[in-house]
Amino acid sequence: MPHITLEYSKNLENALDMYGLCTALKQAAAATGVFPPAGIRVRAIACDHVVIADGDPKHGFINISVRLRAGRSAEAKQAATDAIFAAATDFTAAHMAAHPFMLSLEMRDIDADLSRKTSSIRDYLPEDIA
Amino acid sequence: MPHITLEYSKNLENALDMYGLCTALKQAAAATGVFPPAGIRVRAIACDHVVIADGDPKHGFINISVRLRAGRSAEAKQAATDAIFAAATDFTAAHMAAHPFMLSLEMRDIDADLSRKTSSIRDYLPEDIA
Amino acid sequence: MPHITLEYSKNLENALDMYGLCTALKQAAAATGVFPPAGIRVRAIACDHVVIADGDPKHGFINISVRLRAGRSAEAKQAATDAIFAAATDFTAAHMAAHPFMLSLEMRDIDADLSRKTSSIRDYLPEDIA
Repeated sequence: MPHITLEYSKNLENALDMYGLCTALKQAAAATGVFPPAGIRVRAIACDHVVIADGDPKHGFINISVRLRAGRSAEAKQAATDAIFAAATDFTAAHMAAHPFMLSLEMRDIDADLSRKTSSIRDYLPEDIA
Repeated sequence: MPHITLEYSKNLENALDMYGLCTALKQAAAATGVFPPAGIRVRAIACDHVVIADGDPKHGFINISVRLRAGRSAEAKQAATDAIFAAATDFTAAHMAAHPFMLSLEMRDIDADLSRKTSSIRDYLPEDIA
Repeated sequence: MPHITLEYSKNLENALDMYGLCTALKQAAAATGVFPPAGIRVRAIACDHVVIADGDPKHGFINISVRLRAGRSAEAKQAATDAIFAAATDFTAAHMAAHPFMLSLEMRDIDADLSRKTSSIRDYLPEDIA
């Protein structure tokens, strides 16, 4: 927790450093202080087929989904939404300025009663981030 | 907005024109009048592993997720749900008639307070659809 | 119904039998008695880029999303959540014991008013599971 999932158009694979973007979003999420760094999972999925607006294959998009365990205040969630989106806009600013590109983010709660989790990752982390 | 995401079993890649289906869904969404055409993003993701019902690898599925900014009436959302699903059933009718195939659609709202977006795409669109 | 979608880090492709896990989750879902076996759709999507916690590329994760038509009791849903998660933890126990690995599951309802479905799959199933 949190889960950050990016969907992106395949035509961005060579135009943007998607792994770098994942890292930037991880750092932005950790910097909010709202999320335990050891629980942050960022992943990006290239979409096989994409049709945007008038269908021009040069259009690109990234959509970011952030899911987090319910219980945080509306203020904390809005601040985290803004911080993660700011990291994404900064990282993609040069691309946005020169190409048709759509960037979006949605945050939503996970119902704790209907979620489960387990992990061995803390056994492998440096003490200062576990 | 809206976001239309298809998940499909990989065995459909050569059996159906997935890019054509994305285009058909984009056109159906635009024709509803509920969504600004410049904001429509359709993408399709091939699923690497699939197990359906009794696990026969000949089974196929497409699931369509439609997400849209909250604020539209229940009637408008139901009509848009029906219109987009009708386009999907029409496009896949021949396949459905000859193969084991499951088609489903879910629409849900995006909480405007917890979503963000930016885009340069209107700078690249013909005026009549921007 | 239900829809079970796994997202997983690509580094698990050769470390875990993802297709076997999909089958195990299908069987666990069917065994709950809550879901019609003919409607169970499990799929797994390999994520192209992943950054977890401190970013060590050896970290792995699987996230399981279960979506089901609204109307079941909270008790039935919690029991199904537990059963499906138990199947996932059992299947991945040896991997968890030897690698940095995060496993999570979220269940949520599908709003019946805003969902649609059609299928030809029952025509192809043995009578005892249709």
